[in-house]
Amino acid sequence: MNKSRVEAFTDAVIAIILTIMILEFKTPESSKLSAITPQIPYMVSYAVGWLFIGIAWYNHHYMFSKAKVITRKIFWTNNFWMFTTSFIPVATAWVGRDLNAQGPEIFYAIVYFTWSLAYAILTHVIAKENERAGYEKVAGSIRDMKIYRALTSWKFVGAELIVWVLIIVFMPALQMLLIAFQVLFVGGRVNEDSDKMF
Amino acid sequence: MNKSRVEAFTDAVIAIILTIMILEFKTPESSKLSAITPQIPYMVSYAVGWLFIGIAWYNHHYMFSKAKVITRKIFWTNNFWMFTTSFIPVATAWVGRDLNAQGPEIFYAIVYFTWSLAYAILTHVIAKENERAGYEKVAGSIRDMKIYRALTSWKFVGAELIVWVLIIVFMPALQMLLIAFQVLFVGGRVNEDSDKMF
Amino acid sequence: MNKSRVEAFTDAVIAIILTIMILEFKTPESSKLSAITPQIPYMVSYAVGWLFIGIAWYNHHYMFSKAKVITRKIFWTNNFWMFTTSFIPVATAWVGRDLNAQGPEIFYAIVYFTWSLAYAILTHVIAKENERAGYEKVAGSIRDMKIYRALTSWKFVGAELIVWVLIIVFMPALQMLLIAFQVLFVGGRVNEDSDKMF
Amino acid sequence: MNKSRVEAFTDAVIAIILTIMILEFKTPESSKLSAITPQIPYMVSYAVGWLFIGIAWYNHHYMFSKAKVITRKIFWTNNFWMFTTSFIPVATAWVGRDLNAQGPEIFYAIVYFTWSLAYAILTHVIAKENERAGYEKVAGSIRDMKIYRALTSWKFVGAELIVWVLIIVFMPALQMLLIAFQVLFVGGRVNEDSDKMF
Repeated sequence: MNKSRVEAFTDAVIAIILTIMILEFKTPESSKLSAITPQIPYMVSYAVGWLFIGIAWYNHHYMFSKAKVITRKIFWTNNFWMFTTSFIPVATAWVGRDLNAQGPEIFYAIVYFTWSLAYAILTHVIAKENERAGYEKVAGSIRDMKIYRALTSWKFVGAELIVWVLIIVFMPALQMLLIAFQVLFVGGRVNEDSDKMF
Repeated sequence: MNKSRVEAFTDAVIAIILTIMILEFKTPESSKLSAITPQIPYMVSYAVGWLFIGIAWYNHHYMFSKAKVITRKIFWTNNFWMFTTSFIPVATAWVGRDLNAQGPEIFYAIVYFTWSLAYAILTHVIAKENERAGYEKVAGSIRDMKIYRALTSWKFVGAELIVWVLIIVFMPALQMLLIAFQVLFVGGRVNEDSDKMF
Repeated sequence: MNKSRVEAFTDAVIAIILTIMILEFKTPESSKLSAITPQIPYMVSYAVGWLFIGIAWYNHHYMFSKAKVITRKIFWTNNFWMFTTSFIPVATAWVGRDLNAQGPEIFYAIVYFTWSLAYAILTHVIAKENERAGYEKVAGSIRDMKIYRALTSWKFVGAELIVWVLIIVFMPALQMLLIAFQVLFVGGRVNEDSDKMF
Repeated sequence: MNKSRVEAFTDAVIAIILTIMILEFKTPESSKLSAITPQIPYMVSYAVGWLFIGIAWYNHHYMFSKAKVITRKIFWTNNFWMFTTSFIPVATAWVGRDLNAQGPEIFYAIVYFTWSLAYAILTHVIAKENERAGYEKVAGSIRDMKIYRALTSWKFVGAELIVWVLIIVFMPALQMLLIAFQVLFVGGRVNEDSDKMF
């Protein structure tokens, strides 16, 4: 497939997902400055959502830059991944109404884990398809990404699940903090060569 | 015309159509997890819409990659096709309120058939214009696309119409399943060379 | 300036303006097929808006393809033109509630004439700046565009104003028809070389 | 990083931020032309917002055109800058309800100053990273931008703060005028070479 067109399409979709989150930021009816305070929880979840999608885009950009071939299979897993990403604005909006409510936080967690699964599958498929096409080195550096190694480590995923259940049972609001933390320390720690690629 | 600019414009329009469908996913007022259940029908129609537009984009990308010339006529049929595509979010939203209601399902069917017609015309025009410009081989492989052969086969279209009428009369909800099925087995079976193009 | 980045930015803005018009298409609360009929007037104005912006994009694409230099001045007039274009969805939405109401049709006419003015200025500036940079031929073919010649002919503009006043006083609904007609026969008749450019 | 993909992503995000502002322009329920008058304050703040983001894009485009390397650090400050930009539609919408109300104008001022800070940081980081990579001349011309020199001059920022406090205390509506003025005379006065770059 035409790699740059798939990239452009993905960029447009991700940019829209990122930006429509601001539509949920309701301007107050009143003209008092204090009328904005009920929006503060949403501002928190919005910032987390932005950080999340920003890191996701960064890692996606790295993988696609490395990839030599984009096959139909990659296209479809990429589409599925964008589909799961499209639920982040919904989860962000719901959580933003009450950061400590269990319902929305469980929904957010479901979106987060589905998204992680989709991302792991996407990475796996890109690596596999490039390996099959003879680009072992490309496949290697894609599989070497911190986020992929975390998502495919049973220790990491197991620990995550335990922490997540504890948090949602005892203090749902912590989830936003945890996600921001993970995003920065797992997703944000990209391969050394990502700056030197071009 | 400038092919890459037409592609970029089309990509942006399709990406927006795809993504605004999530705006219809209303976050519940309540904070109970169960408050999300009324959104399940929409989640079904949303998934079908995403699949549908994803396949459409894939086939469109294939055609445009093959095409050597983009003429004014292609631009206009492409615009008409995007116009019909823009009704998918509307039909998806309406159907998503009640998957088994006849009214919305008939509206969806109208959108679906108009869209199919527009797509068939677009394929026809791209092939024709490229043929006229001396690219018979390009025209040939565009006309050879499974989706085009289905849409221009009277047997296929006739059978479709019968099935559609039966479904809408007796069990409207089946339409979503049928579309997902068609999308996967007709639109999804692209030419063998689509992976090897670049 | 970087022409391709200005083009990409403009394409994104125009694509969004085009696509958000569908958001105004409200899905009915009821599940009866007949519940969609109140949307028919909007469907008319939506189709006209789509045609209008489609032609505008086509002509814009032609001008920018021809232009050799994109200066700061062109950027600003282009921005102003996009600003006026952004009112088309508003005018389309209002007119779509009642095609024969005078208020919305006057508002649409104001948007239409402001848009035309902005478009004429943009064409003038692109031609002028390219002429100054030594590309007389480019300037010539840009000034030769049918839409520009119409917009700068006092006879044409004078006749338009008279027709417009008559229509809005006696039968506002005709405006949509008139715009569709103009779009097709003025905006749609582009220079002969537009197909052969690339 | 892949500069053109970061640019394309940024363009898409900025284009969406720019365009969703029109969604706040509510079409009147009534069909009287006078029913549009309550929208006039919004039209003012919308025009200012458009001018503001337009200038921002222009300056951003200049910096990125000059930059030879785009590092991870630049990506993150760019993301943060886009995040602050995404609040402009919110501030614009609120201010547009009542141009002379103190609450919304204070909110707008907060957004404006945060945005300015983010922009100054972005400029600083781009210059620094390009300097480190050995492109002193690039760093020089980026740091030479009028908008950056203003934002890093304590005299300018100090004078701004005083004027701003006076305005918000005594006549909040003036803020829109002041921003338009600044945008034109600070942001709009770009380096001489910006037209000759390509």
